[in-house]
Amino acid sequence: MGILKLCDEKPPTVGLEATVAEAIQVMLDKSVGGVAVVDGEQRVAGIFTERDVLKKLALSGLDPQQTPVRHLMTAPVDMATVETTPGEAFEEMVSRHYRHLPIVDKDGRLLGLLSIRHLLQWRLDELSQQLDSMEQYVSNDAPGG
Amino acid sequence: MGILKLCDEKPPTVGLEATVAEAIQVMLDKSVGGVAVVDGEQRVAGIFTERDVLKKLALSGLDPQQTPVRHLMTAPVDMATVETTPGEAFEEMVSRHYRHLPIVDKDGRLLGLLSIRHLLQWRLDELSQQLDSMEQYVSNDAPGG
Repeated sequence: MGILKLCDEKPPTVGLEATVAEAIQVMLDKSVGGVAVVDGEQRVAGIFTERDVLKKLALSGLDPQQTPVRHLMTAPVDMATVETTPGEAFEEMVSRHYRHLPIVDKDGRLLGLLSIRHLLQWRLDELSQQLDSMEQYVSNDAPGG
Repeated sequence: MGILKLCDEKPPTVGLEATVAEAIQVMLDKSVGGVAVVDGEQRVAGIFTERDVLKKLALSGLDPQQTPVRHLMTAPVDMATVETTPGEAFEEMVSRHYRHLPIVDKDGRLLGLLSIRHLLQWRLDELSQQLDSMEQYVSNDAPGG
């Protein structure tokens, strides 16, 4: 399965000039935990997530309406391409504790924003399917089966 | 496996009288995404999570130093007991999109705070182990094996 199939159709994004408040509003509107921050060419400059809100905004005293998201975003970020397999993305996200991973084209333009939730669901489905086929195989082989 | 084994040893908590700022500081210090809010008897009154920070604090203009956590916590919350199996907890958390589930004794006192991250790791380990034993079984049965 292509990795893009696991992403939501339209990745949640804000522009580099957006405020923190605008980025949070997108997250609330789309019920997601992170947005990609992109330049005018849709190239990924960073991501801004719930974790950034907790770590950099919540106790900072900063006014989200007046603070550019680029000041609080996480950057640079690791990214994946359509050649990355879900398994590779999964390993990287679990080992590095990432919750979001942008998928970009060869020019760094955003194609999708993968979330750990999507990937965990995929991995569970995949393991369950493997288990089902194994059980099928075993039960076909069983005496009297 | 008992469900408490899956939780961190000391559940992250704050008292009912704590401020939002104190709750966030505990989350930052312990690198967790949520804390249980407990009364003087350690009974769970609610939970306060990254999602509450995003939804109720980030754009509210409230001063976290002046706002009691009980005003922004999620309450009431569903809870589990030591009789709940990891599988039951997993089903509930995935289907209801919970990331945290308090484990309480019969008096509602906090024993542990289960996170979806713990449970997903458990579920993946469990499925992988099942798959391994199946493969072992199949390969033992294979011609020439």
